[in-house]
This record gives sequence, C-alpha cells and structure tokens, in this order.
Amino acid sequence: MNFGVIGYGYWGPNVVRNLTSLEDSQVLTIAEISAAARKRAQKAYPGINVTSDAAEVISSHDIDAIAVITPVWTHYELAKAALENGKHVFVEKPFTSNTAEGEELINLAERKNLTIMVDHTFLFTGAVKKISELLNEGTLGKLYYYDSTRVNLGLFQHDINVLWDLAPHDLSIMDYLLKASPEAIVATGQKHLNSHEDVAYMTLYFPEKVIAHINVNWLSPVKIRTTLLGGEKRMLLWNDLEADEKVKVYDKGVDVTNREGVYELLVNYRSGDMWAPQLEQVEALRQELSYFVDCISSGQQPINDGHAGLRVVKMLEAASESLSKKGSLVYL
Amino acid sequence: MNFGVIGYGYWGPNVVRNLTSLEDSQVLTIAEISAAARKRAQKAYPGINVTSDAAEVISSHDIDAIAVITPVWTHYELAKAALENGKHVFVEKPFTSNTAEGEELINLAERKNLTIMVDHTFLFTGAVKKISELLNEGTLGKLYYYDSTRVNLGLFQHDINVLWDLAPHDLSIMDYLLKASPEAIVATGQKHLNSHEDVAYMTLYFPEKVIAHINVNWLSPVKIRTTLLGGEKRMLLWNDLEADEKVKVYDKGVDVTNREGVYELLVNYRSGDMWAPQLEQVEALRQELSYFVDCISSGQQPINDGHAGLRVVKMLEAASESLSKKGSLVYL
Amino acid sequence: MNFGVIGYGYWGPNVVRNLTSLEDSQVLTIAEISAAARKRAQKAYPGINVTSDAAEVISSHDIDAIAVITPVWTHYELAKAALENGKHVFVEKPFTSNTAEGEELINLAERKNLTIMVDHTFLFTGAVKKISELLNEGTLGKLYYYDSTRVNLGLFQHDINVLWDLAPHDLSIMDYLLKASPEAIVATGQKHLNSHEDVAYMTLYFPEKVIAHINVNWLSPVKIRTTLLGGEKRMLLWNDLEADEKVKVYDKGVDVTNREGVYELLVNYRSGDMWAPQLEQVEALRQELSYFVDCISSGQQPINDGHAGLRVVKMLEAASESLSKKGSLVYL
Amino acid sequence: MNFGVIGYGYWGPNVVRNLTSLEDSQVLTIAEISAAARKRAQKAYPGINVTSDAAEVISSHDIDAIAVITPVWTHYELAKAALENGKHVFVEKPFTSNTAEGEELINLAERKNLTIMVDHTFLFTGAVKKISELLNEGTLGKLYYYDSTRVNLGLFQHDINVLWDLAPHDLSIMDYLLKASPEAIVATGQKHLNSHEDVAYMTLYFPEKVIAHINVNWLSPVKIRTTLLGGEKRMLLWNDLEADEKVKVYDKGVDVTNREGVYELLVNYRSGDMWAPQLEQVEALRQELSYFVDCISSGQQPINDGHAGLRVVKMLEAASESLSKKGSLVYL
Repeated sequence: MNFGVIGYGYWGPNVVRNLTSLEDSQVLTIAEISAAARKRAQKAYPGINVTSDAAEVISSHDIDAIAVITPVWTHYELAKAALENGKHVFVEKPFTSNTAEGEELINLAERKNLTIMVDHTFLFTGAVKKISELLNEGTLGKLYYYDSTRVNLGLFQHDINVLWDLAPHDLSIMDYLLKASPEAIVATGQKHLNSHEDVAYMTLYFPEKVIAHINVNWLSPVKIRTTLLGGEKRMLLWNDLEADEKVKVYDKGVDVTNREGVYELLVNYRSGDMWAPQLEQVEALRQELSYFVDCISSGQQPINDGHAGLRVVKMLEAASESLSKKGSLVYL
Repeated sequence: MNFGVIGYGYWGPNVVRNLTSLEDSQVLTIAEISAAARKRAQKAYPGINVTSDAAEVISSHDIDAIAVITPVWTHYELAKAALENGKHVFVEKPFTSNTAEGEELINLAERKNLTIMVDHTFLFTGAVKKISELLNEGTLGKLYYYDSTRVNLGLFQHDINVLWDLAPHDLSIMDYLLKASPEAIVATGQKHLNSHEDVAYMTLYFPEKVIAHINVNWLSPVKIRTTLLGGEKRMLLWNDLEADEKVKVYDKGVDVTNREGVYELLVNYRSGDMWAPQLEQVEALRQELSYFVDCISSGQQPINDGHAGLRVVKMLEAASESLSKKGSLVYL
Repeated sequence: MNFGVIGYGYWGPNVVRNLTSLEDSQVLTIAEISAAARKRAQKAYPGINVTSDAAEVISSHDIDAIAVITPVWTHYELAKAALENGKHVFVEKPFTSNTAEGEELINLAERKNLTIMVDHTFLFTGAVKKISELLNEGTLGKLYYYDSTRVNLGLFQHDINVLWDLAPHDLSIMDYLLKASPEAIVATGQKHLNSHEDVAYMTLYFPEKVIAHINVNWLSPVKIRTTLLGGEKRMLLWNDLEADEKVKVYDKGVDVTNREGVYELLVNYRSGDMWAPQLEQVEALRQELSYFVDCISSGQQPINDGHAGLRVVKMLEAASESLSKKGSLVYL
Repeated sequence: MNFGVIGYGYWGPNVVRNLTSLEDSQVLTIAEISAAARKRAQKAYPGINVTSDAAEVISSHDIDAIAVITPVWTHYELAKAALENGKHVFVEKPFTSNTAEGEELINLAERKNLTIMVDHTFLFTGAVKKISELLNEGTLGKLYYYDSTRVNLGLFQHDINVLWDLAPHDLSIMDYLLKASPEAIVATGQKHLNSHEDVAYMTLYFPEKVIAHINVNWLSPVKIRTTLLGGEKRMLLWNDLEADEKVKVYDKGVDVTNREGVYELLVNYRSGDMWAPQLEQVEALRQELSYFVDCISSGQQPINDGHAGLRVVKMLEAASESLSKKGSLVYL
C-alpha cells in the first residue's frame, strides 16, 4: 500500500513513523506547507519525497491512500480531492467542520468504493478495548453515566475552541462504547484569552436515562485524564495517566427499594473487591494504521469510518449551538 | 451560652461534642425523634436532658441559642419558632427549602435582633482560609474559573437530590471566595434509582467572564474532592482528600497575543514552581461554633449569616429550575 | 471482666475507650502518673476511679485483668506484680526490654494459669488478616522477601531508639505471617539528635532463602507505610495509608531457566491482573481486646501471647547487638 | 568529533541517536555482536558503517572517541584497547569490574592525555541538578541521611547481581551530591532465582554521622524510584516517577534540647510549606554526550570522569565483600 501524507506538524510525524514501519505500507510523498517541518521530514526520511504542494500527493498515480493530518477546516477540501482522485483517506479527527461536509465525503467514498477512516486513535488503546469488552460482557450491568475530565495547560488552537480540540477524543470513545446516540446536548463554557472557549462543559442525554458529561479545559495547572462509568452492577475508573492499572473495576453498587407504606428509601450499598485488568500493551496508532491497510485490502468497513466521524461532528455541532446560547438544550 | 440542639442524627453528635467542649457554651437539651439516637445521646452525655419533643427546646427559658441539625424541609418551621421565642439560631446547610422562607427568617431575626448562622463549615477549614487569603492578596491574579468535583458512593437522601445535598458545600465556599453573585445558571443531571437526581452538573456564569462548574454524584466508585481555580497569574488545586498538601499553588499561566497582521495567535506558556502552603490544623466545626458564640456576644454579623445562606438557596433554586428543563439557562 | 488500666498517655485512652464500650468488660481503675492526664481521664470517664498509684490497680481484689500501657522499661515490673497478684495481663508492645524478663513473665503466667496478651494490634487489622489468608491459601506461592518501610517525622522517644519504637509493628506482623524465625539479623543506623538511633535498617535472614528488611525513620518529611511481599507466584503491595485498596495483589512473576549448553539465562516475566481484595472494616484494637476477654474466658492461648511478644523482643535484642557493631551479623 | 560505538543492545541505540543529533558529533561505525541488533542499527542508520568486529572501531584512524556500551566485564578490555589506540572513551556504568582495572584505565588515559567519561547519566537530569543546587546553597542544612529505593520487576542480568545493576545509579548520584566518601559499608541480600542476588540492601556510613541506604530489587511488583534526604533545616523527597513535581522540599525539621536537670528530651517539631521547584526539562543523555564533546575539546576534566567511576566501583566492591559475608562491616 503506497501512502501520501499531507501535514507534518505535531501528529504527522507519528503517522509517517508508523506507516513506514508497517510491513504492508510505505510512504511515497509528504506534503507540508512549513519549510522548517519539511526540512525535519526530509532529514528523518531521506528516501521519501517531500513537497510543499498537497496537489502533488493528491494527483500522484502511485499513491493508493492519503493521510490528511491537517487543521480541521482543511479536511473537507483535501479529503474530497483525494477521493475524487480515487484515493482511500485516513483523516485526522474531528472528521470535518460540519455535518454537510461529512455527509458529502461519505457519499463520495461510497460512490467511488473507497475507504474513509477517521483517526479516532483511542479506540485502539488497550484501555478502550478492555472497557468495551467489559461493557459487552455485561460486567457493569445497565449503564448509568459516563463522566470524563480531560484538562491540561494548552495547547491553545487558533481555529477551534477547546470543545472541538479535546472533546472529539471523548465523543468518539463514548460513541464506540455506548453504541447509542444522544438525544439532546447542553454545553456551557467561557472564553478568557481569545475568541474561542478555553473552558467548556458538555452534558449528553442518552436514551434509557444514560447521561454523559465531558469537562475540557486548556487552562488547568495539572493534566487530568479521568473517566468514570457507573453501572447497575459495577463501576469503572479509567485514569489514562497511570503507568499501570489504568482501568479499575469496582464491585460496588447501590440498590434502592421503595417498600410499600415505608416513607424512607431502603438504600443498600454493596462494596466488594477492586480489579485492574491487564491491558494490551500496543501503540494504538500503529494498530489503527495497520487496521486501515487491512480494511482497504479486505473491503471491510472500519469501526471508525466516515459515519463514526460524522456522529462525532454532529455532537460537536449541537454542542456549539448550545454553547452559543450559554447552555440551551439542543436536540439531535 | 446555653444551647439546645434539635437533631442527633449524622451531624448532630459532632455539634454537641464541640459545643460541650467549648469554654463558653454548654448544651442543656437535645431533641431527637429517633428513640435509638436519643439512647445514644443519653449514654454519651448523661448530664444533658434528652427529649423527643423539639418544642421543649424551643420554649425553654434557659436556652439562649438553638442548633437546628435536621433535614432541610424542617429548617424553616424550627428556626422560625426558635427566633419567635427569642433564640439565636445555628442552622444546618442548606439554609431553607426556598428563597421565601430564607427571607422571612432573615427579617424575623433582624426585627428580633437575633443572630442566624448557617452551617457553612468549610469556610472554617485551613484550606478555605488559605485560598481566601491567596485570592485576597492577588496571588492568582484575575480569576478565570472555579471547577469542583465532589463525588462518592451515596449517601442517598430521600428528600432532596444530589445537588441540594452536596453542592451547598461548593456554593457556600464559592460565594465566600469569589465575593460575587452568578448572573445565570445551567444545571443538568439524571435520576437513576429514585425520584431525585443522583448525578448532576452545574455551570454558573459570573460577571467578568468568570465561570464556575460543579460536578456532584452519589454513584461514583471513588471519592473525589477536587477543586481547580485558574487565574491570570497563577493556578490552584485543592484536593481535600490529601492528608498533607491539600492546597497546591502553581506558578503557571498563559499569555496570548494577537499581533497585528499575524494570523496565528502567539501563545506563551509560563511554568514555574509549585508551592503547597502550610495550612492551619483545626477542627472547622469547633472554630465555627466558637465564632457563633462570639458573634452572639459581640453582636457581630457572621460571614455565614442568613444572607450567605440565602444566596446559596437562590443558586440551588435556580439550578433546580434549570435542571427541570434539562439545562435551560436561568438568570438570577 | 473487670479491668484496671495502667498508663493514660498516648495509647491508653484508646484502650480505655474500647474496654468500656465492649459488652463483657468494664474499667474499674485507671492509674497514671501525670496529673494532667489523670484530669483528662476523670473528665472523660466520671464513673471510673482514677489514681496516681499503679499499686492500687495491681492489688485491687475486684480487678481481673490489667492493661499495662506504659513505657517498655516499666513493663516487666508492672506485669510481674500484676501476675503475682493473679491478674491477667494485656501489655503494650514491645513486650519487655529483654529476653530474660519476657521469659520470666511467661513462666510466671504459666505457673499461675494466667493469660498474657501483647498488644500486637496490627494482627487484628483487615489488611493483615487478608494477607495472612492469602499466604495460607498459597496465593503468593513460595515467599521470596518481605520488605517494609515505616517512616515519618517523630515522635522521638527518650528511652528507646527508632528500632524499638517502630519495628515491633513489622516484626510482630512478620512473625505472624511468615510463621518462621529468622536465623540471623543485621541492623544498621545512625543517631543524629540524641543518644538513640533515629534512622535504622534491619535485614533478617530466614530459612529457605526468605529475606526480610525493615526501614524505620523518625526524620522523614513524609509518612510512608508500605510493605512489599514477593512470592514465586504472585506479589503483594500493602500501603496502609491508602483509604481504600490498602492491599493489592499482583499476578506477576519471573521464571528463570538455565538451559543446558546455553550461556544466557532464559528469563520469562509474567504479568497479569491486579486485584485489591475488600478488607474487613473494623477497629483492630476493639477486636483485639474483645479477643483478650474471650481468651481469658475460654482459656485459649492468644496468637499474640507472651511467646509471640518474646520472639519480637529476641529479634530486637539481636538487632540492637548488630546495630552497636555497625551491622555485624548476629545469629539467633 | 567522530565517534565509534561498541554495543547496540538496550542502551546503545539511545547513545547513537543522541550522538547523531548533536551538532558537533557524528557516528562513523557501530560494532555489535548480535546479528539482529546489527540489522536494526543498519536499518535505522543507513549511512553508518555497522560491523560485528569491535577491533574495526578501535583501530579506525578516523575515529576520535569510542562509546563502550557493553556488559561490565568487557569494559576494561575494550576501553584499554581504545585508549591505547589514542581514542577518548565514554564507558557505560559501572566503570569496571574491579578497582585494579579502573585504576589502570585512569593511569593510561592520563599518560595518553585522553578523556574518560563514565555514563553517570542521572547527574545530567533536571532533578539531580536542582538537588545539587539546593544542597550547595545550604537549603537543607547539615545532611542527616540519604535513603533511596530503586525497585521493579527485572531486568535480570546474567553476569551481575542487582547491586551492580541498579545501585550504580544511586552511588554515582550520592557521590556527586554528598561530595564525601563513605567510611564503611554493610550490604545484605538474597538470591532466589539464579546465582546472583535479586534483592539487596546497602548501608553506607559517611563521616559526620551521615548515613545512606539503598534498597534495590528485581522482584518488585511495582516500580519505585524514591529518594529521601533529611537535613537539619529541611527535608527533600525525590520521586523520579512523578511526571511533574519530581522534587519536593519540605520546610520541616526537629530540634531536640537536653535541658540540664530535665529527664525527658524537649523535642520541637517544625512544619512549614512544601515547595516543588521547577526542573530543567532536558534529555540527560543528550546533555551528557554534548558535555563529553566539550570536555574533549577543552581538555576539561568531566565531573563523571574515571575517578568518579572508580569511586562507585570501590563502593560496589566493598558491598560485594560485605554481601558475601551476609552483612559484615567493610571499611573503605
């Protein structure tokens, strides 16, 4: 599989490193507008063609698939051109700037029989795989809530707010784990340093009383990556910053009984062992790119296809609308 | 100062223990409806009169002040009767079930020249005192946000939701530290086990772009008590569960410059030392009750007077309204 | 069971509180040399006789058992007098100042058919009970090492060094868990502030290649209470300062093979889940004192009898000898 | 500066990566006995000559300096040959297998006017630099103790025990920070899986009552990298596994007074703020190699020269002797 990569900024080098180390793939051309970044790319990969012109990648006859690792506002144009030229597309998250763009790309790919994969890297981590497995096995019982905190100092983006920057991680994970779509969204936040929100909060109402909440912040003195999942039978804490024991399953629960004629609730708290399952130790991006190559070869639809990317964009769009109204409920 | 105490459930024993150990105060009578709790009270304090009838406390001629340590829906009736009988009142948080009740109690106390203190215990902890000192000295610079997480397993209340149960701590601390009133509130949440929300989130919009957020949850497998304050000059993390180093001040910040003609923001991250100030080691409730005795003697208005209690009730009321509309913005 | 308590300093109040709350026991007399401490005792327990004269406790006809909660150098005289007067004895750890004293007390108690219990409180904690259970069930496999760190700032003792102050906890736990006696001991340490060591280290060689190590320190800025146990099949971490999850069992191990003709070792690391068993939530001292009452009634020999106390004293004696020679190997 | 590198196993690739990225240095040849490792080296660095024969590096006329990144038992032969061929030498720690070898290499280098640097990488970390600065400024006051724990699961070495594998880190740091030589050493330990100790403890007696202790273990379920330094004025905790706040300085101390005629010690505990200084964020190995190039150019003697390496070897030798006698005191 011959790859072209557009964008060699913060994340692009990781994509190139993994694509070049995979058995079945190689990178032919890297396109990047920054001269300094082009220089770094050329030094690291003397054998790869490095250009300032994305069109060179898009129009190349030797390239089968293109990785678009650029700011979100450029995704649509680049991915569209790539698809039109018959290339499979791996595109950085969030998929597109709005729903219309995402739908158009999906339709185009389907017409052309090409594969779109959106870079929802976290789906390929040992932690998310294990949590998915536990949920599928019913270990947690009926889910009550999903609550994530993703805060740190910076990196401020100049084209998007903190919600579009950090929440796609949580939304893509949540979309994968919950296998359900939110009915309505409330988002609040504030801008302190420029024209984009740097602190934001998002509540998502799912069917069957499942509630999700996301706390994202570019102005936190400490880095926090913590997700809580509460279920009827067990509860789970995922702390992605722990070196070991990232995922802890608590055999804890609450039973509430309303006995007839009894005024007070009968609440019974159950507390048992805690258990930290061994997680697969892999580089998620490597697995994801290898899976991309496999999907193209086999024609299999990726779990993180355009539709998955579009669902995340729809949630972000609804959140933006709510945020602009300081927290109004927006139905999806 | 002779005290009567109404309510000897979860928190009442702590109030009695501290009142009896203070130099200037003693407890004459404890009223409690549960026979089992009365028995415990009598065993622990053979010298105190224990009764099932609150009216016995309220009408006693020897009692100067009454501590009302009962469910919130009883506060108004009990405090009103106490004030009408010329007693000073120490009342558990939240002050009352609604604004009207709180206002009536404040007016009554003012007419009768009596002192109301609402049990905002946290204001008397070493941590909150130190944070207040740091804010007043300008150590953090202009404040950007206040973000608190207060979650644990239970204790489910049968008469109020998790917001009325846990958020009064945060709201009273925030009210004291920020010295400002929110302009609008958004609250979201969900009920899973009974007719009250067990998971809830609250955003408060303050003037000058200050935003506050509170995350409360009765269904968390782990106990979290973490508050982040972000300021222009420094940032602060308060983890109340740390044995030592509860408050950490980070010499971190972000400067954003928009240079004319330059497209990208110039963002400068500043990162210096962290500093954990030594905190006063005191039992907060003891200090608060001692301060209550002092305020009554001196006629001084407590920092946690009826007005402070009322401000918290107003925020809770607005939050309840927003919550019932699944997150609509409610102006105060 | 009627108790007399000698010593109402740091630990005595806890003993009295538990003895008075147990169903089957009451405290008749407390003897204490400090007038201030006697005043505190009398205020807290108006119904108990408080005296400055230990002989009053020892010679009382109504008293069945005596708790000796005094400095170690007084244990022998007080316990001997108590036993001679036909009283059962609960004595603070370490049991005695030397082996000879301990042996004499054991012989005396046996002749008189009286019970000696040494206050090895930790044996009655949920953590030690669970670890004992895991070892007995073979969960860890053959044990390799026991490594404990017990450091904090102070409290400096004026009559004993840090080894005699803090290590008895570890030695009594280890004696209980390992069910084996060390063959030889090496101890090192240093005095900085007075004539007793404030920093000390102790290695114990047990049969079958089991090694134990204890690190005790009165000059540490942070409090650490961590014990590691390594076994052939699993490994265990006990952090007594964790609120929850004090004991963690790691499904980790190492297999080393020496294949014939192959120079390098074949080392295979095994790494599986971590598991934090739910621990019994009890006040250890209450359980221990209740067990003392039971042992007296039933004539059962306590697990923490004089012999257990003597084994700890023997280890401390050997350690002292080694320490005085800056670390010479001392055989037991 | 033209480099040859002998050894491309675990650590060698890091040395090559840094040497190739430095401005003033390049790697001409890598010698490595494992064919698989040679293949990896050649793939990563197509422009570098890769050979199985160390002599090719040693005898090359174009090479100025040689990095010896091989097992300790090979250091002497390789470094000697390199020095005899007029090459400067960067050698992995520990410097040599014994004192005699180390002294011979130092003498040879001095005769030939060549530079030896021993890879004591930790001296170039932000943490050690800051601790050194604090000690030199007298922030901690007179030092009382240095206590390090360095434990994890594996990596088992087949030619040396855990003391020779892990303790050189601590010994080199301690040697640099304390600027003093130990007077005597006690070491204990045990072998469980093969013929080398996998658990070991080391006490070092320094002049002026300074005591040091090192706890190393290949059989720990958790990784610990914690060093405590206690001083008269302040105390310090260095936890190298913390992402931020690796070094914490505690304004804590103890004053002990022996007042004439007063039996009990007057102990006064002082407890103030904690402070985590901002540390330099650098790759230590890069700084060290850059410093090596500078030292060669300028003729400056490195802080981690052969003498520093030899002091560490002497301590290890004494520890080995003590260990073989199960803890006898060995004077240096």
